[in-house]
Amino acid sequence: MVDLKFSDGLIPVVVIDTRTREVLMVAHADEEALDLTRRTGFAHYYSRSRKRIWKKGEESGHLQRVVRILVDCDEDTLLYEVEQTGVACHTGHRSCFYRTVDGEEIAPRVIDPEKVYKKQDQRR
Amino acid sequence: MVDLKFSDGLIPVVVIDTRTREVLMVAHADEEALDLTRRTGFAHYYSRSRKRIWKKGEESGHLQRVVRILVDCDEDTLLYEVEQTGVACHTGHRSCFYRTVDGEEIAPRVIDPEKVYKKQDQRR
Repeated sequence: MVDLKFSDGLIPVVVIDTRTREVLMVAHADEEALDLTRRTGFAHYYSRSRKRIWKKGEESGHLQRVVRILVDCDEDTLLYEVEQTGVACHTGHRSCFYRTVDGEEIAPRVIDPEKVYKKQDQRR
Repeated sequence: MVDLKFSDGLIPVVVIDTRTREVLMVAHADEEALDLTRRTGFAHYYSRSRKRIWKKGEESGHLQRVVRILVDCDEDTLLYEVEQTGVACHTGHRSCFYRTVDGEEIAPRVIDPEKVYKKQDQRR
């Protein structure tokens, strides 16, 4: 494996849909999350706010099967090419990048997030 | 404009080619770089290593005309959609993401970086 440069133990990950090539989200991985991603084939990240590893879709069911992992020239950023189940964004949009910097929505909400939360409640 | 969340004065920027939708690079912007980008229509970033604003292509001529700027749901990451002149990567690859995490090159070098450096010398 390429000698990755983690910063404070983390490396940013750009996530794209392998079919549409759309940028879905940006998250962070630590070494363990990357290792879990490679071993299981499903995207794992490190949540800076929750201070723990998370498997994408562990609650919503919106998993990401990782088809390929790329690294940039500086070896300090990763790119996961994924098959996205459902949507990537917790707002119900397919991608987290659904607005211009001026706040104009350029992509529709395709899933009602309340239904995803409801599903979570039922799982408890 | 959306109320952006800068971290230590910086916000990460994912850059895609507006034509091919390819992820070209990831860089950082501070408020001034973003303002310059919006005012001039050309991508500006903040270099953490050089500790200064830089206009992409200022030396190589490989400018990025910014067509649209998106923001993610958390308002802590930007996405520049650009028309790339030449190549985005200083290695001469079109995108900085030209290798898998295992080091396999998946995209060719399309420009000889030495020629770009040579051009820089002539400009001095």
